[in-house]
Amino acid sequence: MSLRIAVIGAGPSGLAQLRAFASAAAAGAEVPEIVAFEKQSDWGGLWNYTWRTGLDGHGEPVHGSMYRYLWSNGPKECLEFADYGFEEHFGRAIPSYPPRAVLFDYIKGRVEKSGVRSFVRFETPVKWVSWSDETQLFTVTVKDLKSDTVSSETFDYVVVASGHFSTPNVPYFPGLEMFPGRVLHSHDFRDACEFTGKNVLVVGASYSAEDIGIQCHKYGAKSVTFSYRTRPMGFDWPETLSEVPLLTHVTGKIAHFKDGSSREVDAIVLCTGYLHHFPFLDDSLRLKTNNRLWPLGLYKGVFWTKNPKLLYIGMQDQFYTFNMFDAQAWYARDVILGKIALPDPAAMEAETLEWRAREEAVTNPEEAIDFQTEYVRDLLAATDYPHLDVDHVAALFKEWEHHKVEGILTYRDRSYPSTLTGTVAPVHHTPWMQAMDDSLEAFLNVPAKAAE
Amino acid sequence: MSLRIAVIGAGPSGLAQLRAFASAAAAGAEVPEIVAFEKQSDWGGLWNYTWRTGLDGHGEPVHGSMYRYLWSNGPKECLEFADYGFEEHFGRAIPSYPPRAVLFDYIKGRVEKSGVRSFVRFETPVKWVSWSDETQLFTVTVKDLKSDTVSSETFDYVVVASGHFSTPNVPYFPGLEMFPGRVLHSHDFRDACEFTGKNVLVVGASYSAEDIGIQCHKYGAKSVTFSYRTRPMGFDWPETLSEVPLLTHVTGKIAHFKDGSSREVDAIVLCTGYLHHFPFLDDSLRLKTNNRLWPLGLYKGVFWTKNPKLLYIGMQDQFYTFNMFDAQAWYARDVILGKIALPDPAAMEAETLEWRAREEAVTNPEEAIDFQTEYVRDLLAATDYPHLDVDHVAALFKEWEHHKVEGILTYRDRSYPSTLTGTVAPVHHTPWMQAMDDSLEAFLNVPAKAAE
Ligand SMILES: Cc1cc2nc3c(=O)[nH]c(=O)nc-3n(C[C@H](O)[C@H](O)[C@H](O)COP(=O)(O)OP(=O)(O)OC[C@H]3O[C@@H](n4cnc5c(N)ncnc54)[C@H](O)[C@@H]3O)c2cc1C
Ligand SMILES: Cc1cc2nc3c(=O)[nH]c(=O)nc-3n(C[C@H](O)[C@H](O)[C@H](O)COP(=O)(O)OP(=O)(O)OC[C@H]3O[C@@H](n4cnc5c(N)ncnc54)[C@H](O)[C@@H]3O)c2cc1C
Ligand SMILES: NC(=O)c1ccc[n+]([C@@H]2O[C@H](COP(=O)([O-])OP(=O)(O)OC[C@H]3O[C@@H](n4cnc5c(N)ncnc54)[C@H](OP(=O)(O)O)[C@@H]3O)[C@@H](O)[C@H]2O)c1
Ligand SMILES: NC(=O)c1ccc[n+]([C@@H]2O[C@H](COP(=O)([O-])OP(=O)(O)OC[C@H]3O[C@@H](n4cnc5c(N)ncnc54)[C@H](OP(=O)(O)O)[C@@H]3O)[C@@H](O)[C@H]2O)c1
Repeated sequence: MSLRIAVIGAGPSGLAQLRAFASAAAAGAEVPEIVAFEKQSDWGGLWNYTWRTGLDGHGEPVHGSMYRYLWSNGPKECLEFADYGFEEHFGRAIPSYPPRAVLFDYIKGRVEKSGVRSFVRFETPVKWVSWSDETQLFTVTVKDLKSDTVSSETFDYVVVASGHFSTPNVPYFPGLEMFPGRVLHSHDFRDACEFTGKNVLVVGASYSAEDIGIQCHKYGAKSVTFSYRTRPMGFDWPETLSEVPLLTHVTGKIAHFKDGSSREVDAIVLCTGYLHHFPFLDDSLRLKTNNRLWPLGLYKGVFWTKNPKLLYIGMQDQFYTFNMFDAQAWYARDVILGKIALPDPAAMEAETLEWRAREEAVTNPEEAIDFQTEYVRDLLAATDYPHLDVDHVAALFKEWEHHKVEGILTYRDRSYPSTLTGTVAPVHHTPWMQAMDDSLEAFLNVPAKAAE
Repeated sequence: MSLRIAVIGAGPSGLAQLRAFASAAAAGAEVPEIVAFEKQSDWGGLWNYTWRTGLDGHGEPVHGSMYRYLWSNGPKECLEFADYGFEEHFGRAIPSYPPRAVLFDYIKGRVEKSGVRSFVRFETPVKWVSWSDETQLFTVTVKDLKSDTVSSETFDYVVVASGHFSTPNVPYFPGLEMFPGRVLHSHDFRDACEFTGKNVLVVGASYSAEDIGIQCHKYGAKSVTFSYRTRPMGFDWPETLSEVPLLTHVTGKIAHFKDGSSREVDAIVLCTGYLHHFPFLDDSLRLKTNNRLWPLGLYKGVFWTKNPKLLYIGMQDQFYTFNMFDAQAWYARDVILGKIALPDPAAMEAETLEWRAREEAVTNPEEAIDFQTEYVRDLLAATDYPHLDVDHVAALFKEWEHHKVEGILTYRDRSYPSTLTGTVAPVHHTPWMQAMDDSLEAFLNVPAKAAE
């Protein structure tokens, strides 16, 4: 087969695509040539931690939004790959909420085993993608950062797997330009120790706000004030954490809020979410959406309906992560291999709008979990991805939501059963609030590797 | 005339190009159509301060590298426009070292007077430029950030004036990924107050290191340690500032240096310079150079010898700034208008190499000043740019160098004569070390405008 596929990004979504084809190849299928372009020097996407912020050593925007001491904020049992369990990777059961380094290790384990690393061109950001009606091919222009050269190649398909929690959404509040302290977006947050002893203002009321706020608390911030736009998170916060309405403006070090109250703060962290950002696509190919469960324009959440040779993986807001990317990638693979036929454009569009209507009927987190569960179930039904018990996963997500409400500082001490093996995760050796070392070695209780 | 010129960037260099054509038009010349694309929402380039760091509100890399409380680090008499003096702009003589806002006001004054604002498309970054041998035109692809749309137009000439002190050069030192505090490049430095009471490590030994270090001192840092790669700056530092050899690695909060010494530090500022970065150009059009007085590939320091319809303004390391950009822009204008003929490629290349040989013979700052003076003189001789006494400017630069050595905290209290009018600048009302308010109003001693 002479088809060529470009995958943009080697994070969990791009790697799911590589793994999907590797699994077909292992089963004897003839598979196309795949080139994955990855701008970082290693794979794993956001899980590949970097101390850098802003622009990287080559002047490219830094992709990483993760920070030190980040632990999974959902049970690992909800994201487990159906074809490569945690017990298989670590040789034993491990606790339910691992720190970043442990999940990074797990992600890498599967793709190392599949032998797909040679398909990835590292330090090679995609700069531009264009489509030719005449040749029915994409031209992909990339920069090789190592040699500082720009070049182009043609492909039959392009899979965009560049993530959407990397380009910060940074609103302005009057007075920020005169605030005598640090103002940053969560994308640039790296080390809570910088805020020890400080009064920190966190703007936003979602996962980043919640996690960065409690992390600052864990590592010794004097106080954390959360400022919400729509509604407070409403957790049972420890005494030095509190929620106030939206920031209106800043005068000197004083932050003013919508209810007329004000507080003196030393630093401001804007946990205001991310933009879907595809600087390498023109308007005819570019997905434009906010962060939601059902972006429009993508049949099955994957195929760009205006040109289904362009595919997007992982563009939805995420309860499900790794195994949803797998479900998408396996489906994408089977369409490319001709095993699944796409309906005509009108039918694709109609189905897409049906899903949107269902999404708009969602009124609470439980219904949101059910919505995404149905989506993943729909994809899985069509391919040979190993059995994933999505009803069990959905039940775990709902339990997790309750556990967070019961204790925002203690929910990470809980254990859940694997939906693959049934093994209940062991309790971690240290309660999360006392676990200050987030290394893989500390978590697994194994000797540290010699310093690099 | 149906020629079309695209100017990339409306900082001092791009504005010099607009001003050069406006001045020809005012003198009765027929001038081409000019479109300046500027990614920020206002003109002035680096002088247009932003509190933002990393990526801006649209996900574009933030251009600004300037910070609060930044004052000119050279006498304003060395950068004065020959066609628009400080006395003309402010209606009186002002002190020699103005803060950023005052120079920003001055830069804007000239172009407002010339009425060129309508030529600028703001919030419109250039994404890609390509050249067609067939049509002999450039296609310039831009993104309108306001409407979130991408579009293309063709031009006969492209003038790259996008600056080269904006994309940080960020080296890695082992251990940075585990440093429990803030690590930043000078590009992201905004407010020295963040470092009050802290022990700050500054890596680098040039203008940014010097200025950020003394600013942190001015605004209450506990200590500043400068770490140099090639040689120390060697100023007579106050007691809490000191210089050590290059950083080798970091363990926890301890910074280790090449001489075996070490220090505990709370924050690390990498003042390690900038990259010439043109993400919108392919290899056939792209200037690749480090920061130096004579980059290769540019005839007269301006014309891309491989395709002289592509021009670069302001790409040299800078003693001279605003008036050198003017000298380049006037020369560029006269070539485009057909008043000056370019020699053949071989002659252009040969002259370029001659300048490079002269540059390589430079052994100290005084010779460097003389080198750039000769370059500016060469350009000025060919155009009608108003008389600029470059020998006088060169003498002022040399005085300035001596004044810095005499007192790194007091040189900004000096006064120099205008090379245009001869007026000696008045002494500022407050010594620089005590001048904590860097607003235009405080500097000029005028009432503040109503808060916006
Ligand atoms: C702070 C934070 C914490 C999170 N924590 C969790 C968690 O605990 N559990 C969980 O399940 N999920 C978590 N997530 C969600 C996360 O989005 C997914 O886990 C997962 O990383 C998404 O995978 P992806 O491959 O779609 O995107 P990414 O992981 O973002 O990977 C995209 C890849 O594309 C590359 N790329 C981007 N642009 C280009 C280009 N132009 N050319 C070439 N390569 C490019 C990037 O370098 C990157 O490697 C978290 C997200 C954030 C921001
Ligand atoms: C911290 C700092 C302090 C300085 N202090 C002084 C000083 O005291 N005195 C002095 O004389 N000089 C100083 N300089 C030097 C400075 O380089 C010049 O004064 C001057 O700003 C250079 O003008 P420029 O137009 O070449 O570049 P810039 O000022 O950098 O302007 C370039 C413009 O191009 C725009 N642009 C970039 N990319 C694109 C794109 N793709 N599409 C559209 N627009 C784009 C930018 O938004 C910007 O407006 C300082 C520099 C720095 C970094
Ligand atoms: N493992 C971990 O511990 C961890 C930590 C952090 C993040 N994450 C992951 O990272 C992803 C992104 O999470 P996120 O919280 O960054 O983004 P998000 O879920 O999209 O939430 C964005 C938040 O920003 C607020 N916001 C947006 N614009 C605003 C404005 N102009 N003013 C005020 N508030 C504004 C939103 O408020 P409204 O509610 O009013 O819209 C919302 O609260 C998620 O997948 C999450 O799971 C995981
Ligand atoms: N108005 C103001 O007060 C002000 C303030 C700041 C900057 N500026 C302007 O900004 C411009 C840029 O100045 P700049 O100082 O940022 O850049 P610069 O003059 O190019 O200097 C770069 C510095 O970084 C060092 N460096 C580079 N790579 C390094 C590495 N890997 N390890 C250690 N050191 C490394 C260089 O050391 P070597 O010497 O060893 O090469 C040099 O000291 C100048 O035009 C300056 O005038 C003005």
